[in-house]
Amino acid sequence: MRQQPERLSFEISAREGEARAGRLQTAHGSVETPAFVPLATRGSVKGLLSPEVAELGYEMVLGNTYHLMLTPGAERIAEFGGLHSFMDWPGAIITDSGGFQVFSLAHGAVADEVKGRRGRPPLDGGVLEISEQGVRFRSYIDGAEQFLSPERSMEVQAMLGSDIALVFDECTPYRADRDYTARSMERTHRWLERCLDWHRDHGPDRQAVFGIVQGGVHEDLRRESAAVVSASGVDGLAIGGTLGRDKEEMRSVLDMTLAGLPAEAPKHLLGIGEPDDLLEGIARGIDSFDCAVPTRLGRHGMALAPRPASRFRFDLRNRREAGEHGPLVEGCPCPACARLSRGYVHYLSRAEELSGVRLITLHNLVYTEAIVSRARRAIAAAGFEAYRAAVLAGATPWEAAGER
Amino acid sequence: MRQQPERLSFEISAREGEARAGRLQTAHGSVETPAFVPLATRGSVKGLLSPEVAELGYEMVLGNTYHLMLTPGAERIAEFGGLHSFMDWPGAIITDSGGFQVFSLAHGAVADEVKGRRGRPPLDGGVLEISEQGVRFRSYIDGAEQFLSPERSMEVQAMLGSDIALVFDECTPYRADRDYTARSMERTHRWLERCLDWHRDHGPDRQAVFGIVQGGVHEDLRRESAAVVSASGVDGLAIGGTLGRDKEEMRSVLDMTLAGLPAEAPKHLLGIGEPDDLLEGIARGIDSFDCAVPTRLGRHGMALAPRPASRFRFDLRNRREAGEHGPLVEGCPCPACARLSRGYVHYLSRAEELSGVRLITLHNLVYTEAIVSRARRAIAAAGFEAYRAAVLAGATPWEAAGER
Repeated sequence: MRQQPERLSFEISAREGEARAGRLQTAHGSVETPAFVPLATRGSVKGLLSPEVAELGYEMVLGNTYHLMLTPGAERIAEFGGLHSFMDWPGAIITDSGGFQVFSLAHGAVADEVKGRRGRPPLDGGVLEISEQGVRFRSYIDGAEQFLSPERSMEVQAMLGSDIALVFDECTPYRADRDYTARSMERTHRWLERCLDWHRDHGPDRQAVFGIVQGGVHEDLRRESAAVVSASGVDGLAIGGTLGRDKEEMRSVLDMTLAGLPAEAPKHLLGIGEPDDLLEGIARGIDSFDCAVPTRLGRHGMALAPRPASRFRFDLRNRREAGEHGPLVEGCPCPACARLSRGYVHYLSRAEELSGVRLITLHNLVYTEAIVSRARRAIAAAGFEAYRAAVLAGATPWEAAGER
Repeated sequence: MRQQPERLSFEISAREGEARAGRLQTAHGSVETPAFVPLATRGSVKGLLSPEVAELGYEMVLGNTYHLMLTPGAERIAEFGGLHSFMDWPGAIITDSGGFQVFSLAHGAVADEVKGRRGRPPLDGGVLEISEQGVRFRSYIDGAEQFLSPERSMEVQAMLGSDIALVFDECTPYRADRDYTARSMERTHRWLERCLDWHRDHGPDRQAVFGIVQGGVHEDLRRESAAVVSASGVDGLAIGGTLGRDKEEMRSVLDMTLAGLPAEAPKHLLGIGEPDDLLEGIARGIDSFDCAVPTRLGRHGMALAPRPASRFRFDLRNRREAGEHGPLVEGCPCPACARLSRGYVHYLSRAEELSGVRLITLHNLVYTEAIVSRARRAIAAAGFEAYRAAVLAGATPWEAAGER
């Protein structure tokens, strides 16, 4: 791992087992870790203004290369001074490389290839060709042909001006077999080198680059990828690709991957954000997470809550909520819980009022921020194991932290 | 007009020509007039939380009997302590009677009746029967049969607990002829008596009742309706029904109607809210307005602006906005204008991001509030005519008020 403090530094201030609390210093301010990173996929955390996201306690958001290159276009955002300026977000920004999106579109093709069918696989979702060079696909907006490669992804991220760029990788699905996963991982490693070469010559001085560890659910591949990515000269590490079929396998894949990564490096877990997964990741040494869960659940009327038996959520649209006078979650300080009833939020959500989406999104982001910020404080006070056990047993983060 | 200060009082503090500035004192705080009243049709100003609406400077919102009786139901809202408590709005609330909505649904039927077709008119939009007793219709939500009458409308509004209830009226469309409009107006006058009878016996002590003047575009009918409603014992006056085909006819209908109303009474103009219409109404002595325009335009990417040649608005979704670095309106203090570019809001709006709707809605509500609050100050300073002329000529409300 290189140490280039002008673009990124990471300091661990407390440890408890593998869990650690620290601070990631980026070109746009610091991020206390463990941290959750809300998605601003298309230059906006859905339904919120940037100052509101900061008020919730978040210090970093995630923008998406795939979506932003299609519209409004990376060149356009550069003309507005970069993504920070365009969306008025003064804090840190990490950008996804677009790899996950284009390979999600092509999953059908990958599956066919894996099953050993001959000839050119029938590419789905607008993906025209996957080659060593990169991926050709059609824009879902206007059908125009687009191309993403390691170099183009880094170029787009350079124009967006994010503080942390992610390398362009092939995201292999769970159903890919070992052979396909191995070949895909090797290509991802070659692409990693191309990303770093491009960034060395053309990347912004103050932009850090995180590598992505692939290898599917196979221990030897995960170990190999961990070693290759760690040795590559990236500023930090992200864990990508499939983490398995269920939460148990996810924890096992995390264990085998993390065992091969240098302890001091900042580690980001891509696309994971349910309350129990955050705690299991933190317990294993993950420093940051991004995930659509808090915002997407909000748009579907689902509120996060201390309910381990039902995936830490409940459906506010259920008719039984109509007459409930209490808050979504007792003790939660969010605008929905502090002043309103479940019956009112239920009504707004069923009526598909924008204010309903907004209230539940705010609740879910407050709840998720509380999970990680209280974990951070618990690690500093050597109380993380008790905190994690309490949340997993059904306490709210505030209760588990002894606040109320 | 009765004077019952425990439920409503209205004091005029300054006059300039027919325009006046004053204060409406309701059971839930005072409302400085001239005032614009944002719609909270279904218990929420679309996309905003109640404290945000108050922060914009608004002191009264409008809830809707028709929508709220269908879902979540007036009984449900009463069980939550009334609409103020349900939606966490501490300020004043006026409720529409539902008349406008059920008769809008039935417009097709009215038109057929007007054209002299025989037999039972083919009722549209779920309206099953219009009779002297009231209106039977089907809920647009679940198809269940519903009934609205003067008594039921007042009962619903009593359960909602609004500060100002509107009487149940038949809202006659522009295309209705004089005979139909006259008969409809007479029924509305009979319904007015039934509303007041019900309210006298069963209405909340602190709820005021406003009558609605009908009569279409016909001077004699408007005069008659103005006299009947003014003499009925209502606490205030609203002007309803068609105001004509265009803005010129609207001003003429307003003139003929206002000439017949007592000067000291509070006067509300229903469903009007474009910047020039607000100023023309204020100039004629209107004290308050409600309208979907600021919030509905926001959902369609239209921003209010000092552009008299294009109905004081422009389409942010137009491609020419994509590269614009300036604000929606120079000098506007709203969150979109103060910190963001037209290019960014254009992008969010075209991408149908919730944050785009929210930003334009905030802008439109800030702009509309500025139009009326600066009119209020101008009247107090005997500068309303100059202010109105400046806004109609293309100044922003802040420029017209000499603020920037």
